[in-house]
Amino acid sequence: MTSILLLHGPNLSQLGARDPAQYGTDTLEDVVAVSRAEAEAAGARLEAEQFEAEGALVSRVHAARTDGTGAVLINAGALTHYSIALRDALDLLEVPVVEVHLSNVHAREPFRQHSVIAAVCDGSIVGFGTAGYPLAVRAALALHDRHVA
Amino acid sequence: MTSILLLHGPNLSQLGARDPAQYGTDTLEDVVAVSRAEAEAAGARLEAEQFEAEGALVSRVHAARTDGTGAVLINAGALTHYSIALRDALDLLEVPVVEVHLSNVHAREPFRQHSVIAAVCDGSIVGFGTAGYPLAVRAALALHDRHVA
Amino acid sequence: MTSILLLHGPNLSQLGARDPAQYGTDTLEDVVAVSRAEAEAAGARLEAEQFEAEGALVSRVHAARTDGTGAVLINAGALTHYSIALRDALDLLEVPVVEVHLSNVHAREPFRQHSVIAAVCDGSIVGFGTAGYPLAVRAALALHDRHVA
Amino acid sequence: MTSILLLHGPNLSQLGARDPAQYGTDTLEDVVAVSRAEAEAAGARLEAEQFEAEGALVSRVHAARTDGTGAVLINAGALTHYSIALRDALDLLEVPVVEVHLSNVHAREPFRQHSVIAAVCDGSIVGFGTAGYPLAVRAALALHDRHVA
Amino acid sequence: MTSILLLHGPNLSQLGARDPAQYGTDTLEDVVAVSRAEAEAAGARLEAEQFEAEGALVSRVHAARTDGTGAVLINAGALTHYSIALRDALDLLEVPVVEVHLSNVHAREPFRQHSVIAAVCDGSIVGFGTAGYPLAVRAALALHDRHVA
Amino acid sequence: MTSILLLHGPNLSQLGARDPAQYGTDTLEDVVAVSRAEAEAAGARLEAEQFEAEGALVSRVHAARTDGTGAVLINAGALTHYSIALRDALDLLEVPVVEVHLSNVHAREPFRQHSVIAAVCDGSIVGFGTAGYPLAVRAALALHDRHVA
Amino acid sequence: MTSILLLHGPNLSQLGARDPAQYGTDTLEDVVAVSRAEAEAAGARLEAEQFEAEGALVSRVHAARTDGTGAVLINAGALTHYSIALRDALDLLEVPVVEVHLSNVHAREPFRQHSVIAAVCDGSIVGFGTAGYPLAVRAALALHDRHVA
Amino acid sequence: MTSILLLHGPNLSQLGARDPAQYGTDTLEDVVAVSRAEAEAAGARLEAEQFEAEGALVSRVHAARTDGTGAVLINAGALTHYSIALRDALDLLEVPVVEVHLSNVHAREPFRQHSVIAAVCDGSIVGFGTAGYPLAVRAALALHDRHVA
Amino acid sequence: MTSILLLHGPNLSQLGARDPAQYGTDTLEDVVAVSRAEAEAAGARLEAEQFEAEGALVSRVHAARTDGTGAVLINAGALTHYSIALRDALDLLEVPVVEVHLSNVHAREPFRQHSVIAAVCDGSIVGFGTAGYPLAVRAALALHDRHVA
Amino acid sequence: MTSILLLHGPNLSQLGARDPAQYGTDTLEDVVAVSRAEAEAAGARLEAEQFEAEGALVSRVHAARTDGTGAVLINAGALTHYSIALRDALDLLEVPVVEVHLSNVHAREPFRQHSVIAAVCDGSIVGFGTAGYPLAVRAALALHDRHVA
Amino acid sequence: MTSILLLHGPNLSQLGARDPAQYGTDTLEDVVAVSRAEAEAAGARLEAEQFEAEGALVSRVHAARTDGTGAVLINAGALTHYSIALRDALDLLEVPVVEVHLSNVHAREPFRQHSVIAAVCDGSIVGFGTAGYPLAVRAALALHDRHVA
Amino acid sequence: MTSILLLHGPNLSQLGARDPAQYGTDTLEDVVAVSRAEAEAAGARLEAEQFEAEGALVSRVHAARTDGTGAVLINAGALTHYSIALRDALDLLEVPVVEVHLSNVHAREPFRQHSVIAAVCDGSIVGFGTAGYPLAVRAALALHDRHVA
Repeated sequence: MTSILLLHGPNLSQLGARDPAQYGTDTLEDVVAVSRAEAEAAGARLEAEQFEAEGALVSRVHAARTDGTGAVLINAGALTHYSIALRDALDLLEVPVVEVHLSNVHAREPFRQHSVIAAVCDGSIVGFGTAGYPLAVRAALALHDRHVA
Repeated sequence: MTSILLLHGPNLSQLGARDPAQYGTDTLEDVVAVSRAEAEAAGARLEAEQFEAEGALVSRVHAARTDGTGAVLINAGALTHYSIALRDALDLLEVPVVEVHLSNVHAREPFRQHSVIAAVCDGSIVGFGTAGYPLAVRAALALHDRHVA
Repeated sequence: MTSILLLHGPNLSQLGARDPAQYGTDTLEDVVAVSRAEAEAAGARLEAEQFEAEGALVSRVHAARTDGTGAVLINAGALTHYSIALRDALDLLEVPVVEVHLSNVHAREPFRQHSVIAAVCDGSIVGFGTAGYPLAVRAALALHDRHVA
Repeated sequence: MTSILLLHGPNLSQLGARDPAQYGTDTLEDVVAVSRAEAEAAGARLEAEQFEAEGALVSRVHAARTDGTGAVLINAGALTHYSIALRDALDLLEVPVVEVHLSNVHAREPFRQHSVIAAVCDGSIVGFGTAGYPLAVRAALALHDRHVA
Repeated sequence: MTSILLLHGPNLSQLGARDPAQYGTDTLEDVVAVSRAEAEAAGARLEAEQFEAEGALVSRVHAARTDGTGAVLINAGALTHYSIALRDALDLLEVPVVEVHLSNVHAREPFRQHSVIAAVCDGSIVGFGTAGYPLAVRAALALHDRHVA
Repeated sequence: MTSILLLHGPNLSQLGARDPAQYGTDTLEDVVAVSRAEAEAAGARLEAEQFEAEGALVSRVHAARTDGTGAVLINAGALTHYSIALRDALDLLEVPVVEVHLSNVHAREPFRQHSVIAAVCDGSIVGFGTAGYPLAVRAALALHDRHVA
Repeated sequence: MTSILLLHGPNLSQLGARDPAQYGTDTLEDVVAVSRAEAEAAGARLEAEQFEAEGALVSRVHAARTDGTGAVLINAGALTHYSIALRDALDLLEVPVVEVHLSNVHAREPFRQHSVIAAVCDGSIVGFGTAGYPLAVRAALALHDRHVA
Repeated sequence: MTSILLLHGPNLSQLGARDPAQYGTDTLEDVVAVSRAEAEAAGARLEAEQFEAEGALVSRVHAARTDGTGAVLINAGALTHYSIALRDALDLLEVPVVEVHLSNVHAREPFRQHSVIAAVCDGSIVGFGTAGYPLAVRAALALHDRHVA
Repeated sequence: MTSILLLHGPNLSQLGARDPAQYGTDTLEDVVAVSRAEAEAAGARLEAEQFEAEGALVSRVHAARTDGTGAVLINAGALTHYSIALRDALDLLEVPVVEVHLSNVHAREPFRQHSVIAAVCDGSIVGFGTAGYPLAVRAALALHDRHVA
Repeated sequence: MTSILLLHGPNLSQLGARDPAQYGTDTLEDVVAVSRAEAEAAGARLEAEQFEAEGALVSRVHAARTDGTGAVLINAGALTHYSIALRDALDLLEVPVVEVHLSNVHAREPFRQHSVIAAVCDGSIVGFGTAGYPLAVRAALALHDRHVA
Repeated sequence: MTSILLLHGPNLSQLGARDPAQYGTDTLEDVVAVSRAEAEAAGARLEAEQFEAEGALVSRVHAARTDGTGAVLINAGALTHYSIALRDALDLLEVPVVEVHLSNVHAREPFRQHSVIAAVCDGSIVGFGTAGYPLAVRAALALHDRHVA
Repeated sequence: MTSILLLHGPNLSQLGARDPAQYGTDTLEDVVAVSRAEAEAAGARLEAEQFEAEGALVSRVHAARTDGTGAVLINAGALTHYSIALRDALDLLEVPVVEVHLSNVHAREPFRQHSVIAAVCDGSIVGFGTAGYPLAVRAALALHDRHVA
């Protein structure tokens, strides 16, 4: 049974309260629930964690190297734009990594239009709000199947 | 019955023959078939066209304003990176627009890392090869449902 | 009798439908009619064509070298910002060329603030909506008179 | 009866003497006379002032807020390229503002290709020499009519 | 009774020991005491915390959304210049936020002259050493009064 | 008795009329009155002058070197962003200089985010509207006391 | 018998009429004739086509993949500087590709000094006017011989 | 007896597993052992700590100000490239600081070629893999001896 | 008898008081006296004026076109770096123009290393303090002699 | 009988040993022999020299002004990218100058994509390995014939 | 017996006399002596040469390819920052190359912070003054041992 | 008796032959003669040398440290723009250094507008052709007198 790890970075704990025009009104719990439902429907399971701190997020990625994680989904929040440490951690993973963003970052401030982690992820799904997460689960599982094939 | 328009830009007619390390071995027909299957499974239909010429692609987008198209998927190929004319055409659409790329453009040459159309699309799905297309169909249909709700 | 050629680039076929805050509600037909009226009032005639495709627009400019065109008005739309091919074509003309833009491009996105064709035109009229066209006709005729004097 | 204010910035007092290849041989008096003739033919009146000093030009713009000025034409000369103070002054005006340049600034030195005031003007007329002024008068009056309608 | 939260970022724990020419000889305790005195004199109370870690600082800002905090003063130290995560956290606050810096950052290294959080604060007080803090308290209380009025 | 000189640059004469969302509805007289009240409450006196012209402002700063001025507050308006002449004049002063801005310039257009005078001022107070002025008076007096101690 | 395909981009149809100081007085027919003579002298044949439109040029390159073309010579005109679509098409070719320019583009406007197709060509011959074409034929044949060896 | 503090930043806990072409197959334990052996051979002792979190690393540097540390060796990992907080912490130290990198960062991605901490270190040793650490120990001891002389 | 016009820009009235390390202790009167002595020794006369205001300086340059001035020496102070208006005024002169700077501007802040007027002057003498002025007089007279020859 | 001078810059003495993937296995002797053969076949003679030192290469170019050299071929090696001294020397020549490069510099590191000498050469032949040299001989002779005609 | 070649670039002949705050008071002879002592203690020998001229330095590197040199240490002085010729020469070497700098170039002028040779060296030792040389010897020998193993 | 050393860099040996519009028709001998006359008239003597090679020029500057040279005049030719080695050599001198250029480099190509040696010279004299040299002699002697006073 494939295990998906869904990671969120800083400020995503506040989802639902933050700028609804950009992020919608769903909470982080809603996002996780929708993702887990998709995973379970596909016969996988999904674990979700959120971190305000870069260092803790990096450590969690390290742990994923040996805890049976089969694929990683990550919405790194603001760390997307400057955390080379997170990039290096993700680059250590051998399982598929999918980047997700709720808002269309390409239509926002210039500093949100560059991701320092994108080049070490397999792909990205950007701009579909909560609806992007089940797609990311599906993408991750497809990559995982190809990976273990 | 929702009608999805799947558009491809220059050189994607050659899919399968072009740099398999980046683009895989599927042909354009394969990509369309997988997309149509996903659309039909969801009770929608999908029309697909490919254009080498920017002007013809722009005209096709114009036509989509009045021909009952419910959502647009677009992999604009190289035009992604400089066709402001395509951007302006897509910006005229009131239906959802989803950008797709087969390869992870963020891990390639610098000039492929900027999309001039991304800001006028609703979202993007990048890097999953052929597998990204059914996800894009699903994303487009979700946006369409929200749009017409 | 002086013959003015009024050229429009991509997406201007959709005038009236596109972002009325920027472009107003006049259609391309309205714009042409107003321009022709001004030309005819001054004893000239005006031919108008619109092209979605860069190549076709370039060819039309070539034709203007030998078909008796006395002056060219051009709103190149998005091609304004990147079509060096159009620039080179306009540069071949010996008759006056006037650049027109409906919206004040200087108050919009940074990529709309540079025109690659401006340096090979005689002058430009920017930001007056439909009302800019009769001014451009008048400017073109004045340049033409000076040119043939 | 609409009152148009025609403003000129530094060095335009020397018109006729300065680089005839760029600016022609008309003097400032010629430019004003042609502009006034156009205004009067349209039933408006035109007042013209020239300033070498940024501060005095800014003050004159302030005065235009309450002296019955119906529209402003401005050729700010070199201040076009760096006077944020002039930009802020023009931005305070509620009447139409039209920017004029005698030469085609887009075909000259790079530092002349950016106008810091363009974004707070309604539109611009560039490159037609003296002949651009009556066009600017006409544009200003059209904007004014729309403004007071 | 208004409650002000005074936050300090990394290295400010070492105040007094760090480069006295830039930061003076007051310790963090001195800075807090002076700030609290000003707050209490104005009938408010002030809580102060310092964090070396970005994640902990982000979490403390989140807590301020629901713990009755009426205004936030923040000297984010080096995080000022790159922590988009902190920016996003501060942007979630509905109460006034005042940025403070002890030294005149505009007269130091180029990388200290840009603040990524300034745009989401209400205002900033920079360069007055310890004396800037009571001013910031006063500014925060004035903003708070306007905010709750 | 300490004498404070409060200087304003171009367009601030129009305060109250200019973009109330950015600058509030207070007039320059209101701003001066509030500043003078704060100064007098602290046993100082305050003189205020406003200049549209860079040269006159520079001369006034020169005069402050020998007329008994004990501290300078300056809101240089648009000159903030390009007047190296003003920078050089302020740099000649031996008394404290405090920069003030009504709006949060860091949240506005990019060209307003750089101050060429900041590096030669002691500190700055930005974004608190009229309420920033009494704070600046207080800051200036504190610097003055330290200066003469 | 090796077949060489000689391709020309936009505006090269006007050769002979365009800026003789840069391009000489030879027409496109002259250029083709000289190239064909060289090819035939070397026992090869040469087919030549010119396109104003990027899309048509891209399609012609695609056709060259299967029509027995043994080498491609290309003077892409203005497309040289921005057509990533043409670059991608040329990159699909397995036969040698030689870039030719009549004028010394390195001694002209900055925007003519960068070729987006150069990196996917085998080599380039620049600045020798018509005389560069027979050299390019010879270079292409040499590369072809090495290629098929 | 001189005490050397050897600090490692994020992801260096994973040494041995990460990209052996860049980093070799030694683990962090190996690196520490080799460093300690060199220190002890020189009559010094060496303490080593690794941190994934910037804040914890900053705190550890603060502690080194008063715990008898005689010199610091630091491989800050990805923080090298953006942690101004770490730079400020290191700048507080009065003992020698030596920067170490396993790989030749100058031959890698552009973003790895700039170190924000280099300017506040005494020197750096880059590109020698594990073998660089004993050299750094030796360098640190030499600096220390000069420092206490 | 040749008449030399020596012009000074803003803040040079304060010479002697301003940063002696950069500018020395000579006053403006000293500089003028030394220049005049050199001129008179060469049988010429020298008139000197200093302006804090750009507009007045521009007007003075205009006057020099018709008042018999044979050569201009100018130390434009801070205006050197941004006054395109001054550049345009100097460009109108037909007599020789020599730029002078007291300090070696190339060894100071980056913004002092570019002169917007240098390209329209004949030459420049930089970094010799007061001693540079007699050299500039001599240079101007030599240019004048060549000019009238 | 026309005399061609073939010049090589630094490191080209090592040809054959250096990076065969870029430069092939021919030695400098091979390159010269092939070039001379082409020259002699065309009734010209060819002299070849190689220099590691910029100064010696500059002197050799000077000598070519008076020693009967009829055309210069130059592969300046690394000097291509920074030697303005070489550019100035080549610019002094009145005979044709042809730039040659073995590898396709446009497909290599960014710093190899700009030639500071290209603008003062007549043309360039890039990317054909040894085979480019006879083409350059032919180009030089054609230019020479035109030159002396 | 391993032979190390220690190379110095321009101006290092003047060591001891040049800016002692940056470079210390040791002469080049001292630096060589210390390096040789380290080499001999490790059973190797060391040859040292210094060159003011880029071309001579390049030639010496070429010679090292065949004269039995086992490793190269290089302090290229100012050539570090622009000599692509030296970079290309070093890149030809198959033995280890270690870059050394006396001062911490990262804490000096911006143009000293980039090395064009670093990417073709194995590693670098920067900022330790004379003490860095024995470390470089040791590093070179370790690399050599690994190289020949 | 003061001894002045006049140094010229690459290509200045060709003076008189090179682009007379920029450099005039005087030869290097003329320039030296005029300079020597000025020196001797002032009771000094002048030695002149010209170098095509950077290394030789650097060595000559070194020699000037101990051969009794009292001041250096230098026109470094193209080396002005990139020779950091020359900069470092000049920086070693304790006697005055004056930079001279024949043409007004500020009115030429952008790459000629930056001097890497200017910041380590005392001052510069630019644009006066041969006439600038006696001025430079005079400037150097004045600096020398101040230096030895």
